[in-house]
Amino acid sequence: MTSDTAADRYWSTSVSKVTDGKVFIRGYDLEDLIGNLPFTAAIHLLIRGVLPTPSQARVLDGVLSAVLDYGLEKPGTVAARFAVSANPSMAVGMAAACLSVGQHTLATEDTSRFVIDTYARFKASDQTMTAFAEAEVSRLRQARQRIPGFGHPMFKRVDPRAAILRELAISEGCWTEPAELYEAIHAAFTELPGKADIAINDVGMMATVLVALGFTPEEGTGLAILSTMPGVIAHVSEEFAAHRPIRVIPRDQVHYDLETSRNLGADRGAAGWRPEWLPAEKDDR
Amino acid sequence: MTSDTAADRYWSTSVSKVTDGKVFIRGYDLEDLIGNLPFTAAIHLLIRGVLPTPSQARVLDGVLSAVLDYGLEKPGTVAARFAVSANPSMAVGMAAACLSVGQHTLATEDTSRFVIDTYARFKASDQTMTAFAEAEVSRLRQARQRIPGFGHPMFKRVDPRAAILRELAISEGCWTEPAELYEAIHAAFTELPGKADIAINDVGMMATVLVALGFTPEEGTGLAILSTMPGVIAHVSEEFAAHRPIRVIPRDQVHYDLETSRNLGADRGAAGWRPEWLPAEKDDR
Amino acid sequence: MTSDTAADRYWSTSVSKVTDGKVFIRGYDLEDLIGNLPFTAAIHLLIRGVLPTPSQARVLDGVLSAVLDYGLEKPGTVAARFAVSANPSMAVGMAAACLSVGQHTLATEDTSRFVIDTYARFKASDQTMTAFAEAEVSRLRQARQRIPGFGHPMFKRVDPRAAILRELAISEGCWTEPAELYEAIHAAFTELPGKADIAINDVGMMATVLVALGFTPEEGTGLAILSTMPGVIAHVSEEFAAHRPIRVIPRDQVHYDLETSRNLGADRGAAGWRPEWLPAEKDDR
Amino acid sequence: MTSDTAADRYWSTSVSKVTDGKVFIRGYDLEDLIGNLPFTAAIHLLIRGVLPTPSQARVLDGVLSAVLDYGLEKPGTVAARFAVSANPSMAVGMAAACLSVGQHTLATEDTSRFVIDTYARFKASDQTMTAFAEAEVSRLRQARQRIPGFGHPMFKRVDPRAAILRELAISEGCWTEPAELYEAIHAAFTELPGKADIAINDVGMMATVLVALGFTPEEGTGLAILSTMPGVIAHVSEEFAAHRPIRVIPRDQVHYDLETSRNLGADRGAAGWRPEWLPAEKDDR
Repeated sequence: MTSDTAADRYWSTSVSKVTDGKVFIRGYDLEDLIGNLPFTAAIHLLIRGVLPTPSQARVLDGVLSAVLDYGLEKPGTVAARFAVSANPSMAVGMAAACLSVGQHTLATEDTSRFVIDTYARFKASDQTMTAFAEAEVSRLRQARQRIPGFGHPMFKRVDPRAAILRELAISEGCWTEPAELYEAIHAAFTELPGKADIAINDVGMMATVLVALGFTPEEGTGLAILSTMPGVIAHVSEEFAAHRPIRVIPRDQVHYDLETSRNLGADRGAAGWRPEWLPAEKDDR
Repeated sequence: MTSDTAADRYWSTSVSKVTDGKVFIRGYDLEDLIGNLPFTAAIHLLIRGVLPTPSQARVLDGVLSAVLDYGLEKPGTVAARFAVSANPSMAVGMAAACLSVGQHTLATEDTSRFVIDTYARFKASDQTMTAFAEAEVSRLRQARQRIPGFGHPMFKRVDPRAAILRELAISEGCWTEPAELYEAIHAAFTELPGKADIAINDVGMMATVLVALGFTPEEGTGLAILSTMPGVIAHVSEEFAAHRPIRVIPRDQVHYDLETSRNLGADRGAAGWRPEWLPAEKDDR
Repeated sequence: MTSDTAADRYWSTSVSKVTDGKVFIRGYDLEDLIGNLPFTAAIHLLIRGVLPTPSQARVLDGVLSAVLDYGLEKPGTVAARFAVSANPSMAVGMAAACLSVGQHTLATEDTSRFVIDTYARFKASDQTMTAFAEAEVSRLRQARQRIPGFGHPMFKRVDPRAAILRELAISEGCWTEPAELYEAIHAAFTELPGKADIAINDVGMMATVLVALGFTPEEGTGLAILSTMPGVIAHVSEEFAAHRPIRVIPRDQVHYDLETSRNLGADRGAAGWRPEWLPAEKDDR
Repeated sequence: MTSDTAADRYWSTSVSKVTDGKVFIRGYDLEDLIGNLPFTAAIHLLIRGVLPTPSQARVLDGVLSAVLDYGLEKPGTVAARFAVSANPSMAVGMAAACLSVGQHTLATEDTSRFVIDTYARFKASDQTMTAFAEAEVSRLRQARQRIPGFGHPMFKRVDPRAAILRELAISEGCWTEPAELYEAIHAAFTELPGKADIAINDVGMMATVLVALGFTPEEGTGLAILSTMPGVIAHVSEEFAAHRPIRVIPRDQVHYDLETSRNLGADRGAAGWRPEWLPAEKDDR
């Protein structure tokens, strides 16, 4: 009787296993994998546990190239460059960039959850997709909830990046019923007064396609972050080459909103501090 | 006409200002501050913008010593030790520990928000505190929402650390009406069947006292993290002294739940991959 | 007169550029890139600034699949799982893993620097490669400096992963003179007494091939970290599914090496503290 | 026979111990500590393992207030503000700031190591302190090594913050022979031609005093980081209040140094890519 079960041990994993002289990745000998599959396929294998089909790999390539980089207008890239200007380490720059993804950027997670949850409720209903979508838009509107993944400051009606990703997923056979429902909801939404121009944005479409490929919302976030890491590496490398230790915000960009004439002794006394807490007066005690 | 206003510049700060040869911290000359106030007072000054009274400083000392360290049973400490076993850097260890504070640990933020929000609704009502508290408990119970800061696996009726902190805040005159309301809600909660033993836990009391001291929920989280940093420094220093590069989870603690006999060539073919994607076959094309 | 020059502006970048409605990645319209190149090619484009040849892409695929994952015996993976057990966020897990790469793990950077520096000195010499390699090994031995990238606890003479990577680079025409010099140094090293069995390890070979592909040592570190991110995403996803908030080190794994009977009052008095620093006594002053 | 020894168990710690219902911090019952010692004393207790004397606590207060904050001219503060503008989390901001301490900022570690190492060599010599200092300066000069902690762009001869810290350490009896040696080396250094004006800077003096208080170089770094955390909390709180999601570098601050007219199809063909790698052409194969 072995006790090697998930229930008996504190940790359990099925990602990989190290034995004497061998590493198995999701069951495959690492030595067989090296050089024998595109990195995109390795990504799919590691996260989903199975090799992708070529079509899935191409769609995943599409998702991974849907953002790539955004100059110095992505907070994580800038945080990384500031961080390494003080602590010149690639690992530090990449960590700073990872940390800077959340509520306000690359938030595929919210849309993915919306797509998954909405679809589950649709399947539990006995409505047609169109009817369900219209009811859902009404409900969200009355609850004053915004629908994640809709709208872009620049693009009206169509976000071209989203359109390309959608076409790719459809042409490779990776478009699913949940994705169709999300589009039906978008269609119902654009029927509202003043909403005709609102597009599904790139993050919304990435999220939808990631769900179609079978990734959880959190895994989708991981892939969105991963897709921007090559750009971060490039920016950190550029920062090292720039030789600008200790980046700052130039003073003329900052409103320093504080007086500079407070009196410590007076204010401390007024706050009730007695001299015996203070090192300078210690001889007087 | 100067354009040095918050509206004109992209950044604004009132924390400190650097000029040629001088640094002003919340308006005080740094040279006056050095050695002239306890670090706890500096913490209060920096975050709240004003010197604390001695009473406020003592209560803040109490909050900052309410947790301190938790052996190897706090995830952030362990994450820090693993991280530096690979990348021996104090900054890295501290960052890893900061990151490991959130929903499941040291979550003063939720309780602080609850205290602030509940109090605002109480003030907008015309109920007595007791009546409001009872109505609130009913409402939350029906909505099946748990009340943050209640309950501890070990302590029944009273969490001794919470009790000490509460006494300190009361004796120093830093106990406020929102804190009283939180206690009234706790009292109403313990009237529910089977709930008599549920204590306000240490994190709940820290959060309440932090609100009483005037800190925002997010600042409270910052102080909770700060309070554990000395312990993290100690653990990282201990890890360096241990000379154990590359910590692992010992194999007998892990259930490796994967087969190790998958065949790449066969599975790749079955997934539809053609040889021309593969480097080994490139000469045959 | 335009002032749009690197010299005039505080920041400069050539990675990407955002304009109204368009993003250009290393000069290409993002809309052209989406779905039109494998992620590996996008990685090369972003970091090196140019599209790779198919051979370069295949060799880079090889480097990116040379490690992939290492169960729970890689500190960064474990740090990530501990971190997210407290703060359930994919971004946090990935950041914790990035941070845990350094001196003791995945340290391609040292080897890449060694390869580049040694090759520069070789080119400046007028020695044959064999003579230079022998002299270099002698010199390093006398200086008691170890050569980075040599040796593996498990593999004698040949690390099979390194061998596969080397074959791939050679067969794709991505093997360079600096790589040959590193092998010549290895050959000279194995002539030393007792060193015949020492192999070039996988990290050493990754570093060598990364230099052959034209990446700087820091970029190589970035790629080594990137190559392990899919595994980190998989582990964090697994950790979320495990529902084990607040991971700890089980108590029977820890030697708690401290007494538990110190007396604060006595020790504080012995250390010279007067009661007036202490809140409890404040009324007595 | 118990097996509870450091040798038998994978982990060992003497920082704190959790038992049923009690936490012991360096041997003291946490319940005794709460509110009964200033946070500075808790910091000393946790890191050094013993309570400080009041003098040591005051000097540590001095070190902890020697920097405090530096407006938007400290990279870590700016990195934190960028990070939370995307991912609004206090833990994330603090982690980003921790990461941004290293080679180019707050590098007390180098100076502390220099002080410790130099003093060890001095004790092993039979020279007077003055003679040793002069020889050391000569040696370092010939080796073209800079001495850490010397020089400030603004302050000539004396850095006032360093002077205050030094006075505090001396007046509290926390000035040691290694600190005297560092000053002797500084005195010898200023005898060199053109060096008379070079001051010991604030970071150099912090490092020296941290060594005098018994902290290791790495612990000193930890304390330097800790000392800036209140400011980071203040800045992150300010950033949340600013409601500026997604901070960027304004475009007029950036030299975007890339063409925007590259042709993917042409370049890809020129690089040798065949159509079968490309999703768009898949139907033609």
